[in-house]
Amino acid sequence: MATVRLLSHAEASPEAQQVIDDIKRVREVDDVNNFWKALANSPALLQSVWSQAQQVMKPGALDALTKELIYIAVSTANGCEYCIHSHTAAARAKGMSDAQHAELLAVIALASQTNALANALQVPVDEAFRK
Amino acid sequence: MATVRLLSHAEASPEAQQVIDDIKRVREVDDVNNFWKALANSPALLQSVWSQAQQVMKPGALDALTKELIYIAVSTANGCEYCIHSHTAAARAKGMSDAQHAELLAVIALASQTNALANALQVPVDEAFRK
Amino acid sequence: MATVRLLSHAEASPEAQQVIDDIKRVREVDDVNNFWKALANSPALLQSVWSQAQQVMKPGALDALTKELIYIAVSTANGCEYCIHSHTAAARAKGMSDAQHAELLAVIALASQTNALANALQVPVDEAFRK
Amino acid sequence: MATVRLLSHAEASPEAQQVIDDIKRVREVDDVNNFWKALANSPALLQSVWSQAQQVMKPGALDALTKELIYIAVSTANGCEYCIHSHTAAARAKGMSDAQHAELLAVIALASQTNALANALQVPVDEAFRK
Amino acid sequence: MATVRLLSHAEASPEAQQVIDDIKRVREVDDVNNFWKALANSPALLQSVWSQAQQVMKPGALDALTKELIYIAVSTANGCEYCIHSHTAAARAKGMSDAQHAELLAVIALASQTNALANALQVPVDEAFRK
Amino acid sequence: MATVRLLSHAEASPEAQQVIDDIKRVREVDDVNNFWKALANSPALLQSVWSQAQQVMKPGALDALTKELIYIAVSTANGCEYCIHSHTAAARAKGMSDAQHAELLAVIALASQTNALANALQVPVDEAFRK
Repeated sequence: MATVRLLSHAEASPEAQQVIDDIKRVREVDDVNNFWKALANSPALLQSVWSQAQQVMKPGALDALTKELIYIAVSTANGCEYCIHSHTAAARAKGMSDAQHAELLAVIALASQTNALANALQVPVDEAFRK
Repeated sequence: MATVRLLSHAEASPEAQQVIDDIKRVREVDDVNNFWKALANSPALLQSVWSQAQQVMKPGALDALTKELIYIAVSTANGCEYCIHSHTAAARAKGMSDAQHAELLAVIALASQTNALANALQVPVDEAFRK
Repeated sequence: MATVRLLSHAEASPEAQQVIDDIKRVREVDDVNNFWKALANSPALLQSVWSQAQQVMKPGALDALTKELIYIAVSTANGCEYCIHSHTAAARAKGMSDAQHAELLAVIALASQTNALANALQVPVDEAFRK
Repeated sequence: MATVRLLSHAEASPEAQQVIDDIKRVREVDDVNNFWKALANSPALLQSVWSQAQQVMKPGALDALTKELIYIAVSTANGCEYCIHSHTAAARAKGMSDAQHAELLAVIALASQTNALANALQVPVDEAFRK
Repeated sequence: MATVRLLSHAEASPEAQQVIDDIKRVREVDDVNNFWKALANSPALLQSVWSQAQQVMKPGALDALTKELIYIAVSTANGCEYCIHSHTAAARAKGMSDAQHAELLAVIALASQTNALANALQVPVDEAFRK
Repeated sequence: MATVRLLSHAEASPEAQQVIDDIKRVREVDDVNNFWKALANSPALLQSVWSQAQQVMKPGALDALTKELIYIAVSTANGCEYCIHSHTAAARAKGMSDAQHAELLAVIALASQTNALANALQVPVDEAFRK
């Protein structure tokens, strides 16, 4: 259950409908995910997030799959259940293999561990990293 | 200042010295970073983390640079100052360009934003993601 | 499912019953939320949290609704599902409009994004902020 | 020390300079904060964050000060040193009194405490919150 | 629902089966928990985590129950639902009393509160703590 | 630098002075730590935190050192620099040995790692943990 109503197309405002239609067109899907239906309660935020998502996640200096792996990593550290599910699915759709997933998990696990250790030890940043 | 003493080679136990020497040899450096000098207070943990770091960060289904980007993403979400510095430096040493860094930051920023939104909205996971 | 038993009034100790009765009286409700039934396993903690909640959330230099918005913001950043639900409901009961909720979400989203960026960039605090 | 160079106006690209000039004009300041100088390394991100900041933080259904209080709350939960400093300064500039600051801290403290308790107890969400 | 398939013994690779068999033998159980069935998709990670778990959680300078209490504390702060449940169960199996659980919760609650306050106040570390 | 002024005894209000004096008396120290000097800006919060600290941290079903170890664990997961330093110092003052510190770190590291893995894998809670 969400803290807002998941809006159907008919329930959304005209501004929200326009963004939803654009998502469907660009992603070639018949319906949008729950995230967008929840965001539809706030057309300005819906427009802003969709616009950023398109801009940020398109292939550039980093390819589309690498960006999804980074997204999963952040979502895992932040403990966002919805985002972990949706971006693991997205990464698979973009070709993530089981072996790549396993290595992603191993890096996340190692980083989480050393983040905690560096915090607990309060290790001072080496001069060599400062330039 | 750390919560433990950063051990010089001479101050470390023989078990810790052996690991430190291995790090120097593998990384071809004259001295190790502060993280390892702090961990040297606990030879078992030092050995375990070094062993995992070698195993996990070597190129495999994901290349070494991609692994560093994921490391930075996790460290940023966890707010680990030391780790952000050390792995940004490591990513640069492995060839991360300014354009790649900028795109990494953009994905981290977008994910942090949508993680918060999905949490605040408590969006239920779509059936399509469950298989 | 909770990690402790949610205590009914009859199952609670006399000390816990007294606090539960006080919550019902002050809030003019027939039954208390699950949070209090779980906390009832620890009467001292139940008493302490209820006492603080009354003291802290009453209108003062900040009005009661603003305090609920801040509560939602913290709960979102901490990813506490229960707290996000209960305090979104509380904010609505205290008059939060849909437009206010949408703006709250937008601020949370922006802050989460810039928090991540400031961390990833390790931006040094401006002298102007230090006084 | 930042993980990127803090760019002076002269060092920034023309696209970044344009955003920096806009920030100075809108905020009526002679120079921008370190956050923007760091972001200037990525003109697209600089433009996106500045554009969102203007849109999101302007008075609307919530006043400008309330938005700053929410910003501080999120930044505190995320442990972002830079953001806590910059938005506490911003809140004071927008009129936050010492009494309001004290109450903000008290709400953040209470929420952090009950977030942890609800997590540790894994309290199930009440049916009353689901509608 | 997990983001990977929970592997039955028959579905696991020979390397994973060997670790699973070892867990069953050491813990004297007929079947392993879901965590290990999910990790079985990555035999190397499964082996690494199991090996660390045995090494780290055995009684040493700290007894086994104290280690479980620390585990619950970290899992609560990180908001890991699975881990909170599994380690609260493990702590009970190792003798945690209701009174000990209540005091654990009280310390977690207090620490979460003062962590937030020290962050919001950006309290500088006392010289006395630096040695 | 703090976001508030660290108040000397002379600068504090009479209500705050009374709490500060009580801390000095109970802890048998000539001066209080920076945390209390910062909190002194809010006498009500100062009183509340000090009162809880005394109540919660005293030996009970858990001894005083175990409580400090739990405090360090939470503070590390929350990345609170001040709290990690102050409670590591407090744990040492209460007898924490180097071996105990090393084992504390190992448990924190393991928990941080498996928290991330359970999150990334979204492992469903076993029925056995639900009772």
